[in-house]
Amino acid sequence: MELLKVHTLEAARKKLVNAMEGKEPKSIRLNLLKSLDRILAQDIMAEEPVPAYRRSMVDGYAVISGDTGGASEGLPVLLRVVGEVSMGGSSDFIVKAGTCGYVPTGGMIPEGADAVVMEEYCELFDEDHLAVYDSVAHGKNVVSQGEDICHGEVVIKKGTKIRPQEIGVMASLGVLEVIVYEPWTITIISTGDELVHPSLQPLPGEIRDINSYALSAKAEAYGLKVLNVMVLKDDKEPLKEKVLQSMKTSDLVMISGGSSKGKKDATSQIIDEVTGGNSLIHGLALKPGKPSIFGFDPSTGTLVVGLPGHPVAAILVFELMVAWLYKHMTNQKEDHSLFARMTTNLAGAPGRATCQLVRLIKKEEEYYAEPVHGKSGLISTLTRADGYFIMGQNQEGIKKEQRVEVFYL
Amino acid sequence: MELLKVHTLEAARKKLVNAMEGKEPKSIRLNLLKSLDRILAQDIMAEEPVPAYRRSMVDGYAVISGDTGGASEGLPVLLRVVGEVSMGGSSDFIVKAGTCGYVPTGGMIPEGADAVVMEEYCELFDEDHLAVYDSVAHGKNVVSQGEDICHGEVVIKKGTKIRPQEIGVMASLGVLEVIVYEPWTITIISTGDELVHPSLQPLPGEIRDINSYALSAKAEAYGLKVLNVMVLKDDKEPLKEKVLQSMKTSDLVMISGGSSKGKKDATSQIIDEVTGGNSLIHGLALKPGKPSIFGFDPSTGTLVVGLPGHPVAAILVFELMVAWLYKHMTNQKEDHSLFARMTTNLAGAPGRATCQLVRLIKKEEEYYAEPVHGKSGLISTLTRADGYFIMGQNQEGIKKEQRVEVFYL
Repeated sequence: MELLKVHTLEAARKKLVNAMEGKEPKSIRLNLLKSLDRILAQDIMAEEPVPAYRRSMVDGYAVISGDTGGASEGLPVLLRVVGEVSMGGSSDFIVKAGTCGYVPTGGMIPEGADAVVMEEYCELFDEDHLAVYDSVAHGKNVVSQGEDICHGEVVIKKGTKIRPQEIGVMASLGVLEVIVYEPWTITIISTGDELVHPSLQPLPGEIRDINSYALSAKAEAYGLKVLNVMVLKDDKEPLKEKVLQSMKTSDLVMISGGSSKGKKDATSQIIDEVTGGNSLIHGLALKPGKPSIFGFDPSTGTLVVGLPGHPVAAILVFELMVAWLYKHMTNQKEDHSLFARMTTNLAGAPGRATCQLVRLIKKEEEYYAEPVHGKSGLISTLTRADGYFIMGQNQEGIKKEQRVEVFYL
Repeated sequence: MELLKVHTLEAARKKLVNAMEGKEPKSIRLNLLKSLDRILAQDIMAEEPVPAYRRSMVDGYAVISGDTGGASEGLPVLLRVVGEVSMGGSSDFIVKAGTCGYVPTGGMIPEGADAVVMEEYCELFDEDHLAVYDSVAHGKNVVSQGEDICHGEVVIKKGTKIRPQEIGVMASLGVLEVIVYEPWTITIISTGDELVHPSLQPLPGEIRDINSYALSAKAEAYGLKVLNVMVLKDDKEPLKEKVLQSMKTSDLVMISGGSSKGKKDATSQIIDEVTGGNSLIHGLALKPGKPSIFGFDPSTGTLVVGLPGHPVAAILVFELMVAWLYKHMTNQKEDHSLFARMTTNLAGAPGRATCQLVRLIKKEEEYYAEPVHGKSGLISTLTRADGYFIMGQNQEGIKKEQRVEVFYL
């Protein structure tokens, strides 16, 4: 029996990044309205300032601030009204000393004016004259040109996952098409002689296949494109044939099951063979997730991954390695996390990092992390968990009340 | 000028919940593979135990644990091998005292056996006999029937947002169709004489419409269904006509803009008229977001909302009121949040709650929240922010280093 030469999570990530250097996913031009949750493959630069002209923040009168000096409730200043700006209109008048003009919220500030007095502090004295009961400073209630976004500024960075607010900002700049990354194309193969399609009633000794469903959904959640899903028996040659076929169309081929040291283990040999002896990682120093295999075939540019058969381990290794790698290759920022206090002591696994599932409990301005336990393979642990944290391989354990960094699952 | 009678966020939510009581969104039956991110409208109950039979957690030999008592490296116990379980097969033999049988990881435990000895601690003595070098306790390396999920147990609760792991669990139970909530159907109307379509070059005094794009994306992000998007001028009658038409097909009609106290304010009257004088909320004690209007028309079952014209306020009120209400009506759990320490002091707004945008900074097992400032309406503040927190209306302010509960945006 060959000993598995395991890699740490960090070493495995580094090795894959090196092997795939320069293989940034292709990009595609999309309509802005279709771009929610996609990953920007370009910096978005402002081709014009926002706002394009000075705007009023209130309904009121545009004035020269100096004219209002000393105005108060008891002693108003009288100004001559020389015009009115309509919403959406430009101002066809100039505010000179001693004059003013009406501006609605969002309206364009007329030339000459440098501040706006809120309507509430003004009163029309007669048809042409306004009493101003408050003094305003230069720039008061005015959004200046380019104050929101400067011309030439990078407003949204490459690698940003596009949220509704980014769509709003791009709309404001007139950017109606964006270049985003194309998702990896994926083939998912679930192997095991015991597996039957979830629609079937399993016979004794058989179980319903979970991984093909769970991994498809996981890939979809990361915006990846699942081309094909198969459930196959643990027979090496037909399996290898399918892998080779899939490598022609897929950026990523994932095989789950068959990578433990059982009698019918073939995945490891297959990955080695199809990647030209280039299988990079045989085993992770990670609990769960040890029997994971990664190979990269430079000729087709395909990443071939053997995930553990246990559904919990398969999902966690997908999260920590496959999804991590896709996010890295598309320049994405780190995931959301939070710090939470442990509800109990927890022992580490000697020589292996532990990916521990936790339930989060909110209590008085603090989150607590309660480990979700269950024998390996119990998928119900995943639905009971809100997230996970990683305990380093050199950590002996974590004490109750100690803080851990939890990532949502 | 009529004074706006403002509601607090809590009072406004309560009033809407009361008005919409019993109006749970309709539900629909979906294929499991199409159900990612949808909201379950049913409890999922296990119709069978998982696993359905006792399974081995390791490659090894199924034994009667009592037979291994005292076995050690120096003093093995000899057992007769009476069979082998194949992956996916049922065991056609019974383990009696003094005998054992091979089982692969995940294989069915043969009748009579109550534990499995790992292969590593066994050696075939001759064709029929096995030397066992370790003693095992009852149940060792065995996952018992129903240990993952019991028969009749509610495994996933109504109101759960379906994640990949829930899809896996349902697949394992043979649940291939699920009942989920139908999304609200929405019409979005952006009003303002100054608005032009984002594809056009605005003239002086005009600006590109942001809200229709940002609010559509926001609705999409919550899984809601946008039926129609319009950009209209601030003319009351045509606007009212469109609202009435939209109420026939939409569960929610949102009008942004026109709800401040400017000259052309018509939204408030329209919402009052179309909901049969039933407009419930005129103004929120919230900064930003004061000029927000909510009405519910019991006859068509339509919620009609007037959102502020400022894009930042519109998005935040959508988040805090509209999305909150949809989540409440579909029995969803509270959103993810985290606690972060303020990087600076921050003053409150007397009599109003403040929704403060923040950027999150991670530093030594702690998140810090840095306020993102900008004049109202500066949409770039939203793209610079990771999330927001709410400062209560009775809070005078928040001190540097104090913890606030941040929600992601």
